[in-house]
Amino acid sequence: MAIPVETIFLDPGAQGTLQSRIQQLFAEAILSGRFRAGEKLPSSRRLAAHLGVARITVTAAYTELVASDYLTSKGRSGYFVSDTAPKPPDFPPPPPRLDAVDWPRALGQRFSGGVTPARVPDWSSYRYPFLYGQTDPTLFDHQNWRQCALRALGQRDFASLTSDYYDRDDPELLAFIARHILPRRGISAGPEEILVTMGAQNALWLTAQVLLTQRRTAAIEDPCYPALRDILTQSRCHVAAVPVDADGLPPEDLPEGTDVIFTTPSHQCPTTATMPMARRQALLQRAADLDALIVEDDYEFEMSFLSPPSPALKSLDRDGRVIHVGSFSKSLFPGLRLGYLVGAAPFIREVRALRASVLRHVPGHIQRTAAYFLGLGHYDSLIRRMSDTLRTRREAMESAIAQHGLTVAGQGAFGGSSFWMQATDGTDSDQLAAKLRAKSVLIDPGRPFFFTPQDGARHYRIAYSSIPTARIEPGIALIAETLKNWP
Amino acid sequence: MAIPVETIFLDPGAQGTLQSRIQQLFAEAILSGRFRAGEKLPSSRRLAAHLGVARITVTAAYTELVASDYLTSKGRSGYFVSDTAPKPPDFPPPPPRLDAVDWPRALGQRFSGGVTPARVPDWSSYRYPFLYGQTDPTLFDHQNWRQCALRALGQRDFASLTSDYYDRDDPELLAFIARHILPRRGISAGPEEILVTMGAQNALWLTAQVLLTQRRTAAIEDPCYPALRDILTQSRCHVAAVPVDADGLPPEDLPEGTDVIFTTPSHQCPTTATMPMARRQALLQRAADLDALIVEDDYEFEMSFLSPPSPALKSLDRDGRVIHVGSFSKSLFPGLRLGYLVGAAPFIREVRALRASVLRHVPGHIQRTAAYFLGLGHYDSLIRRMSDTLRTRREAMESAIAQHGLTVAGQGAFGGSSFWMQATDGTDSDQLAAKLRAKSVLIDPGRPFFFTPQDGARHYRIAYSSIPTARIEPGIALIAETLKNWP
Repeated sequence: MAIPVETIFLDPGAQGTLQSRIQQLFAEAILSGRFRAGEKLPSSRRLAAHLGVARITVTAAYTELVASDYLTSKGRSGYFVSDTAPKPPDFPPPPPRLDAVDWPRALGQRFSGGVTPARVPDWSSYRYPFLYGQTDPTLFDHQNWRQCALRALGQRDFASLTSDYYDRDDPELLAFIARHILPRRGISAGPEEILVTMGAQNALWLTAQVLLTQRRTAAIEDPCYPALRDILTQSRCHVAAVPVDADGLPPEDLPEGTDVIFTTPSHQCPTTATMPMARRQALLQRAADLDALIVEDDYEFEMSFLSPPSPALKSLDRDGRVIHVGSFSKSLFPGLRLGYLVGAAPFIREVRALRASVLRHVPGHIQRTAAYFLGLGHYDSLIRRMSDTLRTRREAMESAIAQHGLTVAGQGAFGGSSFWMQATDGTDSDQLAAKLRAKSVLIDPGRPFFFTPQDGARHYRIAYSSIPTARIEPGIALIAETLKNWP
Repeated sequence: MAIPVETIFLDPGAQGTLQSRIQQLFAEAILSGRFRAGEKLPSSRRLAAHLGVARITVTAAYTELVASDYLTSKGRSGYFVSDTAPKPPDFPPPPPRLDAVDWPRALGQRFSGGVTPARVPDWSSYRYPFLYGQTDPTLFDHQNWRQCALRALGQRDFASLTSDYYDRDDPELLAFIARHILPRRGISAGPEEILVTMGAQNALWLTAQVLLTQRRTAAIEDPCYPALRDILTQSRCHVAAVPVDADGLPPEDLPEGTDVIFTTPSHQCPTTATMPMARRQALLQRAADLDALIVEDDYEFEMSFLSPPSPALKSLDRDGRVIHVGSFSKSLFPGLRLGYLVGAAPFIREVRALRASVLRHVPGHIQRTAAYFLGLGHYDSLIRRMSDTLRTRREAMESAIAQHGLTVAGQGAFGGSSFWMQATDGTDSDQLAAKLRAKSVLIDPGRPFFFTPQDGARHYRIAYSSIPTARIEPGIALIAETLKNWP
């Protein structure tokens, strides 16, 4: 039986070359049982005419499908679905479910419903995305990343690509972090003091599991990164929220009984405050007095384009009580899911064992690609290029904010990628964000950052990591106009 | 000041092209502060002669380093370290640590010291690796994987490569799993019933966290996958170990009060038993009577080269009480860290929220590469090629085992990649493994699989997924000889 050419269509939404789309079409149709063994395919000429593509494209696709045994070629008779092509399943479809399980009872622990805000998945379709933490395609060094990924996909790196590392990390990435990244933060650490993680989020999560129990107390900055609050809620420890000031976390306000202090000294999230050196020393002293550990989330230190970054808290730590969290999400891209933990060896041993149980290791190809990108110096060039652009955008932000009379609550002394804003009393930033979204403007409302959500009602964050410079002023104008005509 | 050419050496152990190694050498030396701004580089002619490479290679490396601003070119004067090259840090080295932290007290929870055996990291350097679960470089379709990875690195897929997906999965991979992988197992599931995970290990871990508490009971097969026992120990639930027989888990032996049943019906781990259809129905009935959930680890179903795989337990599940775990670790490669969970929507909602907290999502590039590899039919061709080779190796295993008089305890009715073996009473498979390792033979001793380790003292597993066919007979001969001369 011949397959009628009329039943064959290319999916207009599909990606890839025409040839690969044609291959995919046949592979899928054979796997799903739509085309069956022995059925004759349209001639390449007919199919090419029908699909409106070059005949050589169809011939190339057919040849590939023969090589992978989906099709067989019978000389002049043409192409047929191979007798040994992968078979579709012949199980009967399952009967409809009764859902006899009492799910509210069956679920032992709930994890949904946290404070981390739902995100706008199609953010790049908005005209004024003052959105934090996504990648700007115009800034990323796509070509060199691709080169490094290709190299890491080469035959020589086969083992690093495919092996089960069990609980280990890629030695090349580890060496680069130890020798080139950490020294810039003033940190010296050996391989037994470093663990590669699935981004900073994973590093914070692993740390919380190892250090906290229901009987322990974590101190957090207020406001802080919402996902950290979800992590701590899930760990069921006691949480003490300590309000930050213009210099970040005030050490003297840390309560007695604190076991672990979570802080963002380089660039407080979300207020952007940088902790001065004297306060860093005081924080270390306070931690020693409390016999508490400190978890330093050192995100965005690379974005220090106004003045050099302060040394990390970890570099001042003589006791080994600071655990340092680093990430490549901001400097490379967040979809990479790559970060690291630095801490005393007994701590790293436990987080390594937990990571092995949870997910084993970060995929080898990702680690090796990053190691090459870092080692060849592309990372530093990228940071420099990003810094130049962010500096320009920041100037545009400052001037537009001044021009339209908005109020800045924090803007970071050394750079970063966002401004922490404050509207007048009575403004509701949730409503503001909703109104602005209707005008194609994206901002982050303040409530999710605060321990007591109402404290963030008039705050909002606007970032400039993904918005083109030319759109900054019109976007800020829309925010100002919306606030002026409140409610 | 000029940098003496004599101080410049290529690392003989480094990988990559000569040009990239030269670039890396300079980038690292500049970043580490060894070469400083304004220093003059050797001429390309001198350096080429010194390193014994073509001059054009050095010129190309210098040109790239100028482009990325590590070097600057001053016409006839030559190349210099750029004034705006990335700066090394100028922090003082930290003073030696006193390690003032009482780590045994500071660690809230311990995760190290589980039953998962330590692995041989350099397994491929052994001559007879009867090792389970690693990738055989001669079988993997490296070239097409590389093609798919390249396509996923293209400009069109930029968002899927770089974006923060928050708690979502790649829609293309999800669609392929739903439309092509699950139907082969007789399973029909919508997107709200599927979650992409970091391999089967991560899927089992997430499931245990959501379903189990200190007050609940998990039933496991005895023997079973050791990492599952570590996962359950960490969750602190009660564990009931149920001895398996030649047909796998006997449903009537599941104790009253069981909340969650972990089982491997396709291919019991490690005995390789396949559960017959009648017992699958009985297991579902027993679970309904107990009002328990079933977690089906469907690993290695693709390796069914002797007879077609039975439909998954999930395909017979009318109540929605089966949670299905799938993995690409065996069929693609374990370093990929890619698997999936299929279950009722209320369950998937909770594991999705937990995964978001632990690691957000599986890296986008990995998901998209796998989606292309699957969608273009390469996966099926690979499975077929692997099956052909495994069938040949299995025959070699069977004949060598018979020839040398070893005793098989389980070998799987439909294929797989391993034999479960049993030595005579008084043999100790830990000692056996150690003796064999000295003869370049790797086997998995039995103890870690058993709830009561001593039950596995005379058992061992030998796999044929990574050992070349020609080495099977000599390897088996070494095992037989070692056993014959016991102790």
